[in-house]
Amino acid sequence: MAATLTPAQLAERHRATLESALETIGTRAYWSPHPEHPKAYGDGSLSLAEGKAAFDALLGTRLDTGQPGTDDWVGGEVSPYGPKLGITYPHPDLRVLLPAMRAGLPAWRDAGPETRALVCLEILARISARTHEFAQAVMHTTGQGFMMAMQAGGPHAQDRGLEAVAVAFGEQTRAPAAARWTKPQGKRDPLVLDKRFTPVPRGIALVIGCNTFPTWNGYPGLFASLATGNPVLVKPHPRAVLPLALTVAVARDVLAEAGFSPDLVALAAEHPDEGVAKALAVHPDVRIIDYTGSTAFGEWLETHARQARVYTEKAGVNTVVVHSTDDYRGMLANLAFSLSLYSGQMCTTPQNLLIPRSGIDTDAGHRTFDEVVADLGAEIDALLGDDARAAGLLGALVNADVKARLGGAAELGDVAFASREITHPEFPDAVVRTPLIIRADAAAGDADAPYLAECFGPVSFAVAVDSAEDAVALLRRTIAERGAMTVSAYTTSDEVARAVEEACLDECAQLSLNLTGGVYVNQTAAFSDLHGSGGNPAANAALCDAAFVAERFRVVEVRRPV
Amino acid sequence: MAATLTPAQLAERHRATLESALETIGTRAYWSPHPEHPKAYGDGSLSLAEGKAAFDALLGTRLDTGQPGTDDWVGGEVSPYGPKLGITYPHPDLRVLLPAMRAGLPAWRDAGPETRALVCLEILARISARTHEFAQAVMHTTGQGFMMAMQAGGPHAQDRGLEAVAVAFGEQTRAPAAARWTKPQGKRDPLVLDKRFTPVPRGIALVIGCNTFPTWNGYPGLFASLATGNPVLVKPHPRAVLPLALTVAVARDVLAEAGFSPDLVALAAEHPDEGVAKALAVHPDVRIIDYTGSTAFGEWLETHARQARVYTEKAGVNTVVVHSTDDYRGMLANLAFSLSLYSGQMCTTPQNLLIPRSGIDTDAGHRTFDEVVADLGAEIDALLGDDARAAGLLGALVNADVKARLGGAAELGDVAFASREITHPEFPDAVVRTPLIIRADAAAGDADAPYLAECFGPVSFAVAVDSAEDAVALLRRTIAERGAMTVSAYTTSDEVARAVEEACLDECAQLSLNLTGGVYVNQTAAFSDLHGSGGNPAANAALCDAAFVAERFRVVEVRRPV
Repeated sequence: MAATLTPAQLAERHRATLESALETIGTRAYWSPHPEHPKAYGDGSLSLAEGKAAFDALLGTRLDTGQPGTDDWVGGEVSPYGPKLGITYPHPDLRVLLPAMRAGLPAWRDAGPETRALVCLEILARISARTHEFAQAVMHTTGQGFMMAMQAGGPHAQDRGLEAVAVAFGEQTRAPAAARWTKPQGKRDPLVLDKRFTPVPRGIALVIGCNTFPTWNGYPGLFASLATGNPVLVKPHPRAVLPLALTVAVARDVLAEAGFSPDLVALAAEHPDEGVAKALAVHPDVRIIDYTGSTAFGEWLETHARQARVYTEKAGVNTVVVHSTDDYRGMLANLAFSLSLYSGQMCTTPQNLLIPRSGIDTDAGHRTFDEVVADLGAEIDALLGDDARAAGLLGALVNADVKARLGGAAELGDVAFASREITHPEFPDAVVRTPLIIRADAAAGDADAPYLAECFGPVSFAVAVDSAEDAVALLRRTIAERGAMTVSAYTTSDEVARAVEEACLDECAQLSLNLTGGVYVNQTAAFSDLHGSGGNPAANAALCDAAFVAERFRVVEVRRPV
Repeated sequence: MAATLTPAQLAERHRATLESALETIGTRAYWSPHPEHPKAYGDGSLSLAEGKAAFDALLGTRLDTGQPGTDDWVGGEVSPYGPKLGITYPHPDLRVLLPAMRAGLPAWRDAGPETRALVCLEILARISARTHEFAQAVMHTTGQGFMMAMQAGGPHAQDRGLEAVAVAFGEQTRAPAAARWTKPQGKRDPLVLDKRFTPVPRGIALVIGCNTFPTWNGYPGLFASLATGNPVLVKPHPRAVLPLALTVAVARDVLAEAGFSPDLVALAAEHPDEGVAKALAVHPDVRIIDYTGSTAFGEWLETHARQARVYTEKAGVNTVVVHSTDDYRGMLANLAFSLSLYSGQMCTTPQNLLIPRSGIDTDAGHRTFDEVVADLGAEIDALLGDDARAAGLLGALVNADVKARLGGAAELGDVAFASREITHPEFPDAVVRTPLIIRADAAAGDADAPYLAECFGPVSFAVAVDSAEDAVALLRRTIAERGAMTVSAYTTSDEVARAVEEACLDECAQLSLNLTGGVYVNQTAAFSDLHGSGGNPAANAALCDAAFVAERFRVVEVRRPV
């Protein structure tokens, strides 16, 4: 293929960005090349209006990625905000598509880590320029509110993709491409060898997308695998195809322009109930799998996809230890926001608030258990008092499972704070609900207590504990048995803080302490925060450390005498 | 525990060595702090005579590591050179030993990557000072000749251990221990967080040792796990306990002196046929396993030890493509040495020599297939003509399995070059045999052809192929189906060299081209060469890249507002 995008052009456009990403990954300071503000787009990129128009133009059409082996057109997405998208996508004949993907591998491998990284950065740059189009696609497949769809689905997802590319580049270049080895032999001539080290990919990588964060959770695996030389087959969630289909289309364009096979990235959309993920997961050509979703299928993958390296993010139960605070209002505001954001439909949303039954000490005086729960409820009411603001923050319930779970939640215990229906001012068909808080008591000690299982959605539990020690013991047990993507704690006591830290080190969970301002436990920043630890049942990988990329490639050495 | 070995002392002794190791791992140049020459020892370390005396003093004794939970004393090692060792080792009650090992973990974790690395380097330095004692222990458990036992069992094993420590240190320090994150908020105050990043271990690591290279194959996993904070339980091969028992004893001494629990390293010797590896491998406390040995048990571990990250080195079939050479004598000498060294009992020994049936072009003129095989036989005869020299190079057959395999090998095909008995001048009970070469023909195309299975020991196959293309095709198939630790090729054709290289990149195997001097395909140098690729059936890991260490720990982040 004739490349219209040369290595020199790619280097000029993206080399500095790659360097900055690598530097930031080393310092863990703040940095991002992707603007968060909606109004930052429009100059050389799609404005909000243009992005919306681009999205509207996709509705009811056939999204043709141009990939080979298409035997049908499938799609049935319905926006959680109401409208059917009416978009259809290529359904692959894997007997044609997989060989085509494999055929592109050698040239992509031979291009080397830097060219691969720069091509990935061009893909991300084109996605960034269409952030507002992707924002609409994410919003109308996940039910995220506009601002979150735009930020988490746009720049934050792009950041995580870029992070994966940079970490992958770093790990692939630990060994030099070539080395001379000269071993002294006393009075005889030294032994001299020339050695070449080539990172080689594992094979086809499968990305299994999720309903709630198709780009944010999909990009790390996609870009880590592509940057390490593997062709990537993207199997989106049937209810959230569009954001990943657009991603695949952009990637294919860029690969072709850079002179590589566009088939290095392809889409595997499926018929309803086809279950193509299961078939693909055990296909001998599939050597890497990235998955975000239920624990049941994640464990199925870990057990059965033995020919592949499997990275999973599954369910977890996130705990907040509420012990004491010197900023009671800040704590309540922070917690209210964390529980409300996207209706608790984040893998990072806190579920269990462990509160001493004797109450807590605060700068507003001692507050009883009931007062803390009531104050938090009042804070949520204040935060979500205005319907338009509430709808923007809560978004829509993503699917029937979450609606059913919320519907049945009142049976899980004593309702301390009820969920309220909100009518979305723009999308009256959207199901918008405020968070529900259930009262529970750890003293009951029931191994099947509802709060010990993940209740994904706008449901949390205010769990009475005897003491801080009790809270830490329950925290330990919850992480060890159920997993946790996040842990949060509020305490003015160094001793309690240390005990919570020790628990998180022992059980391997990421901890946020005393968040009272504009940083929320739900949110992690690429290049600095790790998302998940990979060391408890919620996930077997963290975004993005070296372990996330190091096994996606191997290094082949060729040595010869000089 | 009161430390008599302070961090400052450790840093003064070993910090420069750690830096040099890290630097060399980056350049892949030659370097080693561990002398190869037997006479380099004696000044501050045991001389050959002292090492031998130390070994002799161990014979017939109880080797007490001082570890808790010992319920019996076991041991039945018999030197392949004849004598029974008569040494017994502690047999653990795992219900006592494993909790003791876990108890040492938090302090070892909290010590941080640098202290852990320096403690590991002190362990290696003490082992280095006793190299001649270890050499005897390796020689009399593996049957290696003295020089090989001393070098591969001593400095080369120590190099691989040091390499693992350095790679582990490097990967654990990619993120800084602490960072400040400041995110601008337009006109408002920036968001500022302090973040701490702590590498945390997975849990108890199990090292399952092998009969032939207890230290060389054992040290990478042992030191990679220990350096990343995991307690390490060493389960030696019942016929090669002593080298690892001595290692455990040294490690325990150093850990205690440095103020840590000696129980971070312990030995799991076993009763005959106890099968403790199987029980340990699925124990919930065991979270990492390093294994070298048979494919059958390696695959069993990969399938059943689901709670652990499993690193395996299994069987493979190593190929030499013999196409053409401009140094026929050099090629023959190099091959003869490679086939003879330690009686072919190396995972890296070539097994199948693929030779065109029409013969090969050389600087000594065209040589027919039969001439090449005959010339190689003559070269082996010349190399091994002197019994003392032959015995030193061949060592002894390690165990009854290898003896039986060699005994039955003549039935595998046409014997092109017969194995000869050699009487060891010093150890008349040792079974010493020269290599056997079987003639085979790839044209037969039999999927069950004997040369397609690993025939571990001094047996190789001269396989007639139609052409270089044929040879490369068979090479590809052999790697893909059987795995390979090494590939070697002799050719003066750039085209053939490229084809072999391409095959090795596609099938993921380490390639040595045109070795005619003092470097042998069997041997890899730490800090520069990778041992295995981790990408074909022979092994799922390479010694030592980032992938070998990156999943032995996770990173826990604690963030809090400033």
